[in-house]
Amino acid sequence: MAKELKELTSRSVNYAQWYNDLVLKADLAENSAVRGCMVIKPYGYAIWEKMQCQLDQMFKDTGHVNAYFPLFIPKSFFSKEADHVEGFAKECAVVTHYRLKNAPGGGVVVDPDAKLEEELIVRPTSETIIWNTYRNWIQSYRDLPVLCNQWANVVRWEMRTRLFLRTAEFLWQEGHTAHATEAEAVAEAEQMLNVYADFVENFMAVPVIKGVKSASERFAGALNTYTIEALMQDGKALQSGTSHFLGQNFAKAFDVMFADQNGSRDYVWATSWGVSTRLVGALIMAHSDDNGLVLPPKLAPYQVVIVPIYKNEEQLKQIDENVAGIVAKLKTLGISVKYDNADNKKPGWKFSEYELKGVPLRLALGGRDLENNTIEVARRDTLTKETLSCEGIENRLKDLLDEIQQNIYKKAFDFRASQTREVNSYDEFKVEIERGGFLLCHWDGTPETEELVKNETKATIRCIPLDGDKTPGKCMVSGKPSKQRVIFARSY
Amino acid sequence: MAKELKELTSRSVNYAQWYNDLVLKADLAENSAVRGCMVIKPYGYAIWEKMQCQLDQMFKDTGHVNAYFPLFIPKSFFSKEADHVEGFAKECAVVTHYRLKNAPGGGVVVDPDAKLEEELIVRPTSETIIWNTYRNWIQSYRDLPVLCNQWANVVRWEMRTRLFLRTAEFLWQEGHTAHATEAEAVAEAEQMLNVYADFVENFMAVPVIKGVKSASERFAGALNTYTIEALMQDGKALQSGTSHFLGQNFAKAFDVMFADQNGSRDYVWATSWGVSTRLVGALIMAHSDDNGLVLPPKLAPYQVVIVPIYKNEEQLKQIDENVAGIVAKLKTLGISVKYDNADNKKPGWKFSEYELKGVPLRLALGGRDLENNTIEVARRDTLTKETLSCEGIENRLKDLLDEIQQNIYKKAFDFRASQTREVNSYDEFKVEIERGGFLLCHWDGTPETEELVKNETKATIRCIPLDGDKTPGKCMVSGKPSKQRVIFARSY
Repeated sequence: MAKELKELTSRSVNYAQWYNDLVLKADLAENSAVRGCMVIKPYGYAIWEKMQCQLDQMFKDTGHVNAYFPLFIPKSFFSKEADHVEGFAKECAVVTHYRLKNAPGGGVVVDPDAKLEEELIVRPTSETIIWNTYRNWIQSYRDLPVLCNQWANVVRWEMRTRLFLRTAEFLWQEGHTAHATEAEAVAEAEQMLNVYADFVENFMAVPVIKGVKSASERFAGALNTYTIEALMQDGKALQSGTSHFLGQNFAKAFDVMFADQNGSRDYVWATSWGVSTRLVGALIMAHSDDNGLVLPPKLAPYQVVIVPIYKNEEQLKQIDENVAGIVAKLKTLGISVKYDNADNKKPGWKFSEYELKGVPLRLALGGRDLENNTIEVARRDTLTKETLSCEGIENRLKDLLDEIQQNIYKKAFDFRASQTREVNSYDEFKVEIERGGFLLCHWDGTPETEELVKNETKATIRCIPLDGDKTPGKCMVSGKPSKQRVIFARSY
Repeated sequence: MAKELKELTSRSVNYAQWYNDLVLKADLAENSAVRGCMVIKPYGYAIWEKMQCQLDQMFKDTGHVNAYFPLFIPKSFFSKEADHVEGFAKECAVVTHYRLKNAPGGGVVVDPDAKLEEELIVRPTSETIIWNTYRNWIQSYRDLPVLCNQWANVVRWEMRTRLFLRTAEFLWQEGHTAHATEAEAVAEAEQMLNVYADFVENFMAVPVIKGVKSASERFAGALNTYTIEALMQDGKALQSGTSHFLGQNFAKAFDVMFADQNGSRDYVWATSWGVSTRLVGALIMAHSDDNGLVLPPKLAPYQVVIVPIYKNEEQLKQIDENVAGIVAKLKTLGISVKYDNADNKKPGWKFSEYELKGVPLRLALGGRDLENNTIEVARRDTLTKETLSCEGIENRLKDLLDEIQQNIYKKAFDFRASQTREVNSYDEFKVEIERGGFLLCHWDGTPETEELVKNETKATIRCIPLDGDKTPGKCMVSGKPSKQRVIFARSY
């Protein structure tokens, strides 16, 4: 164990390596035999399930329902929306045949007689197949709004992949809504941005900046893309959720019209919005340290682990009994707890293991604790320990979990504050961007300037913030007028 | 509405058409633009979600964890287990390319330069990719058992499809477990069969026969396939869940070995088990009638619907207030309720709509009810109505929901009993099989007899029952010795 932990590369030595080590060693995910596709291991999946559960509730609380649309999309659908095809119909998995047959020399080969008339694309996103479906669902204003979400897998044939952050197949949710008016669709897109921000800040404990994307960073087919941007510990930004106002683009491409109260017909207004298993990557990178994961209590698969320290079977039995009482009390408060009294591993090994796995609170109960009716409580976020009375321990632990949730958020917030700064000249920018972080700069609003900066510094406009300082100024590159500062950063 | 309802074909006229009408009209699912792939609409998906939620809890209660494995499987993996390839690597979706490019005349075409070295198969089931993964997870007995489940989509290129019952893409869960001993793996396979039977009987309210499949009906690669078989209203059987004891076949194919306590190495023992969105089809066909769906309360998206009957806005306001009190009380008892006071549809329309959608209890509250503090309660299962006092209504409704759950089960149980009979000669069999139902017959245990019966009557051995009469006898076809009666039926 000590051995394994030492193998976790330090963040300061190689952040990318640290991340990869951690994902593997904390049993979150691993690469599969299929290039670019990951296996999400049970501990990693348990975190994703907690995220799903919370997001799903938030979607339902805002009036959405779940549905399921086909994995495959006819190739021709991608060509129907001009911008969309540019963005999505390129690096994708193409199904061309529907049968294998036995090969003469053993094994199987693709049956050339089973070629599809039209190739099918494994969905990289589902706007096209969904809007093709909505055409039959929507005739009148009475059928609106349609507020569907789906939990699904999607495939984008990425060349350079990283576990959770960028994989060929990933899991996500995609909301697709249809509205009678532009204003309603814009309000929906903004509402879902706020839902995402609420989730990421209050459950993942990661502060985000809400903003809109520049035209060149917009979703292919959108009129406006809202985004939340988070800052990772290495000073790089991570786009954590996007919500798109699609205008009438997809309604026009798939001929989805509705009759209003007066019987006049118009195209339907659309939004789409999604977050993915990428959020697990963000969660890891935002909080974890050289000892392993640091999980916010609200998303930890178990919030408390209890480890017995005993000299003999008799003592273990006594500890088992005491712990059973504590576990029962924690459960009444809705706290998830694991009691690890497996005898094939030593306490020290277990301590390191749960530290690696980011369990927010680790309790240890030994012989002296039995005598004193106490228990040792170790916090994962601060790595501090204290010995507490078992009397009323459940309420104290509940408070501690709340404290940890807040403390993790505060730490990430303070870090971001320390890494966010105004930059006023391009020369300064070129120096500052090497130090990472969010750089607040004036930009003239042109794609030319944006591209120049990207090519020269690998920094992109993460977003034009919705909140905060809106003072106009002059573009740091061109000197032309700028409406407000925007956020530049290097990003995942 | 009355119009729409009349369009629901009667079961006695055309059962298959009735089923298809019902799936479409109750807004459960529809065919998509992709051949054989369905769109699961929100109301149908809500039923599936309730199923998922309950099953997931039952899996976790029996020690399983969720994980996620890749959608794609390298073609060569299928050839590794000799029987498996015969069963699964034939009618499947084959990914051969990973890029599209703009076509000269507009649109997109497959880029011939982006051909995969090895084709990828969209998973029809995941034994191969999972056992290839388990090889790295399992070294010693300490790593066992591995008890993973995944919720996923799978694709089998079916030529003749029917909504929910047989679709090219469907949703399911697949459990894949690894064990140190044969006995433990067999016990796991049997445990999961019992979990499925428990779920189908106690939540879906569909009685099932537990049994094992004959060799020719086994899962490709299994040593033994356990099954639960249900009887639909048209007298056809529907296989509702299977659990497979896989022996060491996949461990040998993917070289998964473990060291036991003494350090000696052996191949790992395996099981797999799954149920799918097909269960939604079973649920529909088992209980519904010519008026529409009949849903068991435990799986109904909402258990109670309340419809106001009012003369004017003022009266509606009063009803709204009264209903708010009832809704609050129902929610404290965990009863899901929808209050439909939308003013664009008449009460009669709503009544038929909720009958069509199978809502277990429909409440109507009008002017006279306001005066008398009463409410009209209509049961979907019996189509009976009674007027009840609003005083303590919540407890009465809770009891009624329990009664409905039991009554639906009893009705299905009695129907099955009436359709299950012993048949002792093949001549009698040929007559009886036309009447449908489960036929209990002696069989000599040979695949030849089984195939003869299948070719001549389209009936298959649904299972060799685990419980019930085990008296030996003589095969109805060959006259050779038979160990016990088996169940023959035509099936979905």
